[in-house]
Amino acid sequence: MGYILKMKDLEGGGVVPKRRKGGVGLAPTNEGVAYNLSPLLSLYLNLLPTSYFLSLMAKNQVDVNYQYNVGAKMDYTYAPGRNHLFVPGPVNIPDQVLRAMNRNNEDYRSPAIPALTKTLLEDVKKIFKTTSGTPFLIPTTGTGAWESALTNTLSPGDRIVSFIIGQFSLLWVDQQQRLGFNVDVVESEWGYGADLEALASKLAADSAHTIKAVCIVHNETATGVTNNLASNDVLNNILTVANDKFARLSSDHYQHPALFLVDGVSSICALDFRMDEWGVDVALTGSQKALSLPTGMGIVCASPKAIEASQTAKSLRVFFDWKDYLKFYKMGTYWPYTPSIQLLYGLKAALDLIFEEGLDNVIARHTRLGTATRLAVEAWGLKNCTAKEEWFSDTVTAVVVPPYIDSSEIVRRGWKRYNLSLGLGLNKVAGKVFRIGHLGHVNDLQLLGCLAGVEMVLKDVGYPVKLGSGVAAACAYLQNNIPMIPSRI
Amino acid sequence: MGYILKMKDLEGGGVVPKRRKGGVGLAPTNEGVAYNLSPLLSLYLNLLPTSYFLSLMAKNQVDVNYQYNVGAKMDYTYAPGRNHLFVPGPVNIPDQVLRAMNRNNEDYRSPAIPALTKTLLEDVKKIFKTTSGTPFLIPTTGTGAWESALTNTLSPGDRIVSFIIGQFSLLWVDQQQRLGFNVDVVESEWGYGADLEALASKLAADSAHTIKAVCIVHNETATGVTNNLASNDVLNNILTVANDKFARLSSDHYQHPALFLVDGVSSICALDFRMDEWGVDVALTGSQKALSLPTGMGIVCASPKAIEASQTAKSLRVFFDWKDYLKFYKMGTYWPYTPSIQLLYGLKAALDLIFEEGLDNVIARHTRLGTATRLAVEAWGLKNCTAKEEWFSDTVTAVVVPPYIDSSEIVRRGWKRYNLSLGLGLNKVAGKVFRIGHLGHVNDLQLLGCLAGVEMVLKDVGYPVKLGSGVAAACAYLQNNIPMIPSRI
Amino acid sequence: MGYILKMKDLEGGGVVPKRRKGGVGLAPTNEGVAYNLSPLLSLYLNLLPTSYFLSLMAKNQVDVNYQYNVGAKMDYTYAPGRNHLFVPGPVNIPDQVLRAMNRNNEDYRSPAIPALTKTLLEDVKKIFKTTSGTPFLIPTTGTGAWESALTNTLSPGDRIVSFIIGQFSLLWVDQQQRLGFNVDVVESEWGYGADLEALASKLAADSAHTIKAVCIVHNETATGVTNNLASNDVLNNILTVANDKFARLSSDHYQHPALFLVDGVSSICALDFRMDEWGVDVALTGSQKALSLPTGMGIVCASPKAIEASQTAKSLRVFFDWKDYLKFYKMGTYWPYTPSIQLLYGLKAALDLIFEEGLDNVIARHTRLGTATRLAVEAWGLKNCTAKEEWFSDTVTAVVVPPYIDSSEIVRRGWKRYNLSLGLGLNKVAGKVFRIGHLGHVNDLQLLGCLAGVEMVLKDVGYPVKLGSGVAAACAYLQNNIPMIPSRI
Amino acid sequence: MGYILKMKDLEGGGVVPKRRKGGVGLAPTNEGVAYNLSPLLSLYLNLLPTSYFLSLMAKNQVDVNYQYNVGAKMDYTYAPGRNHLFVPGPVNIPDQVLRAMNRNNEDYRSPAIPALTKTLLEDVKKIFKTTSGTPFLIPTTGTGAWESALTNTLSPGDRIVSFIIGQFSLLWVDQQQRLGFNVDVVESEWGYGADLEALASKLAADSAHTIKAVCIVHNETATGVTNNLASNDVLNNILTVANDKFARLSSDHYQHPALFLVDGVSSICALDFRMDEWGVDVALTGSQKALSLPTGMGIVCASPKAIEASQTAKSLRVFFDWKDYLKFYKMGTYWPYTPSIQLLYGLKAALDLIFEEGLDNVIARHTRLGTATRLAVEAWGLKNCTAKEEWFSDTVTAVVVPPYIDSSEIVRRGWKRYNLSLGLGLNKVAGKVFRIGHLGHVNDLQLLGCLAGVEMVLKDVGYPVKLGSGVAAACAYLQNNIPMIPSRI
Repeated sequence: MGYILKMKDLEGGGVVPKRRKGGVGLAPTNEGVAYNLSPLLSLYLNLLPTSYFLSLMAKNQVDVNYQYNVGAKMDYTYAPGRNHLFVPGPVNIPDQVLRAMNRNNEDYRSPAIPALTKTLLEDVKKIFKTTSGTPFLIPTTGTGAWESALTNTLSPGDRIVSFIIGQFSLLWVDQQQRLGFNVDVVESEWGYGADLEALASKLAADSAHTIKAVCIVHNETATGVTNNLASNDVLNNILTVANDKFARLSSDHYQHPALFLVDGVSSICALDFRMDEWGVDVALTGSQKALSLPTGMGIVCASPKAIEASQTAKSLRVFFDWKDYLKFYKMGTYWPYTPSIQLLYGLKAALDLIFEEGLDNVIARHTRLGTATRLAVEAWGLKNCTAKEEWFSDTVTAVVVPPYIDSSEIVRRGWKRYNLSLGLGLNKVAGKVFRIGHLGHVNDLQLLGCLAGVEMVLKDVGYPVKLGSGVAAACAYLQNNIPMIPSRI
Repeated sequence: MGYILKMKDLEGGGVVPKRRKGGVGLAPTNEGVAYNLSPLLSLYLNLLPTSYFLSLMAKNQVDVNYQYNVGAKMDYTYAPGRNHLFVPGPVNIPDQVLRAMNRNNEDYRSPAIPALTKTLLEDVKKIFKTTSGTPFLIPTTGTGAWESALTNTLSPGDRIVSFIIGQFSLLWVDQQQRLGFNVDVVESEWGYGADLEALASKLAADSAHTIKAVCIVHNETATGVTNNLASNDVLNNILTVANDKFARLSSDHYQHPALFLVDGVSSICALDFRMDEWGVDVALTGSQKALSLPTGMGIVCASPKAIEASQTAKSLRVFFDWKDYLKFYKMGTYWPYTPSIQLLYGLKAALDLIFEEGLDNVIARHTRLGTATRLAVEAWGLKNCTAKEEWFSDTVTAVVVPPYIDSSEIVRRGWKRYNLSLGLGLNKVAGKVFRIGHLGHVNDLQLLGCLAGVEMVLKDVGYPVKLGSGVAAACAYLQNNIPMIPSRI
Repeated sequence: MGYILKMKDLEGGGVVPKRRKGGVGLAPTNEGVAYNLSPLLSLYLNLLPTSYFLSLMAKNQVDVNYQYNVGAKMDYTYAPGRNHLFVPGPVNIPDQVLRAMNRNNEDYRSPAIPALTKTLLEDVKKIFKTTSGTPFLIPTTGTGAWESALTNTLSPGDRIVSFIIGQFSLLWVDQQQRLGFNVDVVESEWGYGADLEALASKLAADSAHTIKAVCIVHNETATGVTNNLASNDVLNNILTVANDKFARLSSDHYQHPALFLVDGVSSICALDFRMDEWGVDVALTGSQKALSLPTGMGIVCASPKAIEASQTAKSLRVFFDWKDYLKFYKMGTYWPYTPSIQLLYGLKAALDLIFEEGLDNVIARHTRLGTATRLAVEAWGLKNCTAKEEWFSDTVTAVVVPPYIDSSEIVRRGWKRYNLSLGLGLNKVAGKVFRIGHLGHVNDLQLLGCLAGVEMVLKDVGYPVKLGSGVAAACAYLQNNIPMIPSRI
Repeated sequence: MGYILKMKDLEGGGVVPKRRKGGVGLAPTNEGVAYNLSPLLSLYLNLLPTSYFLSLMAKNQVDVNYQYNVGAKMDYTYAPGRNHLFVPGPVNIPDQVLRAMNRNNEDYRSPAIPALTKTLLEDVKKIFKTTSGTPFLIPTTGTGAWESALTNTLSPGDRIVSFIIGQFSLLWVDQQQRLGFNVDVVESEWGYGADLEALASKLAADSAHTIKAVCIVHNETATGVTNNLASNDVLNNILTVANDKFARLSSDHYQHPALFLVDGVSSICALDFRMDEWGVDVALTGSQKALSLPTGMGIVCASPKAIEASQTAKSLRVFFDWKDYLKFYKMGTYWPYTPSIQLLYGLKAALDLIFEEGLDNVIARHTRLGTATRLAVEAWGLKNCTAKEEWFSDTVTAVVVPPYIDSSEIVRRGWKRYNLSLGLGLNKVAGKVFRIGHLGHVNDLQLLGCLAGVEMVLKDVGYPVKLGSGVAAACAYLQNNIPMIPSRI
């Protein structure tokens, strides 16, 4: 019965999307395709309003075989000044974290690492807003964290309800299917949030409790859509049924034992997230997102109900098996295999910074940066990929470009001319949107530099933006809303 | 039919080993147990030949709740001078590598990271000595690399032959069983190499070709045993049958299509390893071993035959699935999910250093350090855990202590008094051996400092070592065998 | 006869400037005074157009004794995101340089350091555009480099012509007087360039050749004034007379043997500078300026004529004595005392980056950033402190604020609210100007972030700026002038 | 009247020392001469007892033009493993300090840097053991710190008593003479301490108080001689007369107003040093010595009497002038010119580590390492350059080699074969001694590695050392004297 993803659904995984109809036939680009120089680019550029760099560009086509200076500086693509990194992950790492990580290996069986780990496990629960959860710091990526959440709590053939609203929720569904679950997919148009009413109906209808889990991506990074797990009435009902321990409504007919698994990869530590209050059974994130660390640590937090489920779940797993972790937790040595010493110290530093700023202040900063970005997009006369305000994401904004422009050219150009890193449009929205990631350790002036850069890129590719307009709109808002820096007052 | 591991076999995974018979009842310790202060320690120490620190030690029992100065310096356990890190992993990281890794995140979809990755994939094949293999740089640990090797090439229920000769081969067998394979276990006494004759018999008897794979740990880190994959006659026969492409003997009756999977975690880049020549189908290592990087990258290399097998293998896997990697390789973007930018640059630097030294010179250095260590052990009058010279490991030496000494006390004492990190004895040899890891980016004088430290620790715990004896024996050999440093001649 | 600086001339060295006449009585601030919170600030702020942060600010006055979190993170004043460092020095350090410097000490008497030094001495000549000069890498600051230039070439009582056009030229004159020279000071109004006609007259009148040296600051960092040493006709004459070896005009009556000493602290590596072509005898800079290194290396380059003069100069010096350096140069060991190993490797990396970008491209980038900044200032309706376009500096812009605003409040506010570091007005222009440093390793988007920040600060302090106006003006220019990044084309 | 140094006295500054009489005519080497490959080396080596590397060496002569791999790794002379850095400065930097220094520049006029500086100035007084002193953190080296001490307290022509007991005291006397003081030199044979009786006579005879200062090097780094400023009776008398505020004896006839200036470059933070108790007027050290920082900060501490003297001292100085510092101290901004942000944070970290270990424990560690080194030297049958036990230095040991060996060959060989950095013999003892620096952030096992290396080198160059003998002697002592690491007990 489970909805089966067809190959074309996965094209973000590599299949080339169709040419944009109104476009000029540029090379398609998606997350699976690093942006390469289009053969048609010089032609295309010559059709744009002239500016002196066009001839430069044309000339530069010759240098397509530019020899990267690999050895000398371990940098492939040197440019003066600092890269403006505004992809929605991996994000900018604070210098404090880089410093904390800049160290030799240590014996992870000495008393020092367990002591550090113990502290980390306590601290990390705070960013999930859980007191009863059990966290796992797994040497893996977000994809591995997904697999950990699923295989530890479910058995092959289990029916789960899952949502596709963009590339990352789609990839999670793909994983769920490949792991042998019976996935009941609820799909929305890209740019829309998850259809929570459909979920309510399915749960209500499922008096036999065949649904074993509900899986949802809190913030879809591909479209900049945040599913409002906090305030939506329908969702409240779901939460009620999903986790009876935290039921806030008494509608008995909704009582349902399904587990509630939430991908918080691009939300936790940046958006309001409340594991306990919302009745989440497994929540997860990755180190390279709002925690502002390097990639390499998948952080998974399991409710007591999820831990209980893991004792009977039959999905095969060894590397991802929570049981091994729990055994070592009990012994006080914490690690079933070698952790990254550097990431542990880095996580300590990252959490210290977050707690010093205050988690709620961190979230407020993201709200401010998200708002400022959307005001700029509006000022540019461009559309947000997110269909309704209720789904606006404060960690990533996907900006829709006019049909005559290829959004991947914007990304390419940002990097090649302005040392600005933006996110590509993926899969269904490849070529149609570019993304501004505004999450993690980043501040207002950095964002304003990015927005100014986007304006110039837009002009470069022929969009008639009024230079300064987005920055002006963002500044008007920010100047009234940026707080003083507490340590400097 | 497969041999089923009993719980007691896994005690390295946490179960407390039985008291040592001749010992004084000290707390058992294994890889799963960080060394904690024994409650009997002060009593024990008072029985030893006195020296002034004993009273210190006794007094210090009081300070067992010492408050680590966590915040101030991000170091739990400050000590002046540099830690002598001689565990068999994670190992010392060269400063050049630390420098290369000390950097902000980057957009991994820009052209820079694929270009870097492409170079790395080519370079990394050299350390496997393969030209036909396909490498995968997986954000995981050695345990994950194991799982990658198994799940991509085999299907549940497949019969595999696997060896237990120590804790790590035991853990791999445990994984193999948990992943649902029918494991035909060949066990040796700890300290002995794999019983390759038994393998030969099994293969010869298997005319139905029910054996789908042979799994072997090249170097058992727990006992310091290197299975000689290169020169052993029996093994040559096995290699013949294991991989017909590289058959060196024509004994037809040995022809056998089983895959040959080799754990090279503590061998590759340190011991002679020849993937193509030896007919290995999947070889794997971890970044934190002889490559001298932080933990976090499992490096797996697959022969064409293994790649072919992966197309039909039915074991469930998503995160570890080679297919996703291969799809992205083909597209030229290389990454199905976010890699650690820092580890990629670190790997580049690590490989550059290895190639500058020369891989064969690196291996020769390990031979030299291993030899020197064994000469010291002999001079101390202690036994090598490795039963025969043919299995001596040049990356780790497990030293057997007399029955009246608890080897974990040696490890504990090394760390607590001399800032020396040694490896614990694990599982069956917990309390009986301590281990000196001499692999990765380390040189002769560092080893000699370690050996001098071991001598003092031995004296501390009551072993009547002649101070200086091991160092003298090692020096006598080294002074005749250390080459000039080419860059300084 | 030499002009004697009166105490009030030196107030940048600490004396409190007089209250601004039209101002609101805020605490005066100059380079000698770090910006502290004015006791009148909350009152003042309440007079400004309201915005919500004002009440915040008022409240924050209470926190004036905020306890810096010193121990925990070694950061006194944590703020999320990256500091926008736009003081005219010390400037942003490239990550590549930080990496190169992140290393242990080395024996500076081993062959490695002399080999590195030799390379550096050759390379560093390129940034001075000299082939005949002799460079000295002195463990000191710009102030020490001044002293090195003077004491090695002159004797007490020597008559020198020197210019005061701002705080730094003033401080140099102060040093010249304290070192016992007879300084013939030519003073200009602050904001004006050096009076080169006066110099010409003095030289012409000096048939007895009593003038032993002409000292000039190429770029006055306090006012953003660049003395055009390249194209000015009068200067050409001076150059003629100042250094007969490089005479470009044949006006015999100008022939004069005075040495030509140039402070290039905020110009070299950022502005066009041609030691040989311009006949400069001693040129100097500091590591923390356009070279984008930490403070700690004064780089002095001496012409053959200056070297010759050093053999008879009678000013006392030991630490700064070139003779010691030259003796060690000759021996091939290069160092009369211990250099900073880290700065040597850092200088290597910094020069490599400059040469990779191309020195002329580096200079063109500074021209671009300077132009963009000035366009923003104009768009804000503010005045440049620099009186005439011919003196506009491409490394620092001093912006004049209206009399009712205290410019130090702008600097203070930038830091306390926006994590933006701007330069204070100094001495005569304290409270009247703030400075934007746009030199070193910085790019266009970083500058645009800074400019957006300045706009918000201006609004904060009551200046009716149109938000976005400066950024728009800068972008309009930049979007037509930023070249593609060669490594990324 | 002052003793005038003749050129030959300064040969450590570059003049080639005479051939060793008993030697084989190897190239002389001193601190001014980095060790280069001797043209006679291969001949020489062939005369040594054979071992296989000799032919290697001979062959390597061919590679004298070895092309350093400069660009690739920013390392001229790559060798596997960590350099054993045992020169008496610059010394090993703790990783914690490297981390603290690995940061971008900051605006030094923001409130953060003065706040940090204020803390540092208080903390740094503790390492001088002074409460009344005023410290100066000068961007310079030890040579500059000398100049700062002299020029701020004395006037040209002032009579001072100074001692020559080795190369560094000689160089200080050279500086004193070049700065125009009338230096009354008291010379001792190298290896002997300062002749304090001679000083007593001079002071007693100087009823006219013509002696304005007594200058002494606490620890002579060239010979490993520590002048015992603490316990020597004669010195106590001197101290009495040198600084009446701290007089411990009442012998009136010794009352004398001379200032007492002490070079503590290789003693402070490693040897017992008590500025206030000993009546020192100016004490100084350099960051790259026992503080274990990079070079670049000269730390000078002045007693109230020295500060008073600075107000009338007529020696010319600007860069080194304390007055400028004091003016900025008073203003609370602390810096007359730009400090190294990195060194300030590094100093904070270095002091934190010293205080965590405990200054007295740090000193005890140096006593232990010094003792162990001397025991090794004795076991090797070699002589300590220091003539009497009362002068033994716990920071550096100068080892005398037999006449048939060139000590610089030992240094050269250590570096070229064992990655071991030892100190050369300087000037009068060039070729006759090599030096082991055992100061700063270093521990027992590191030292033992070094000692083992020295043994192998000694054997390499033909000295009949019993391998292991020195290490054994050191271990026998250390094993009884190393305390437990407090954070790990």
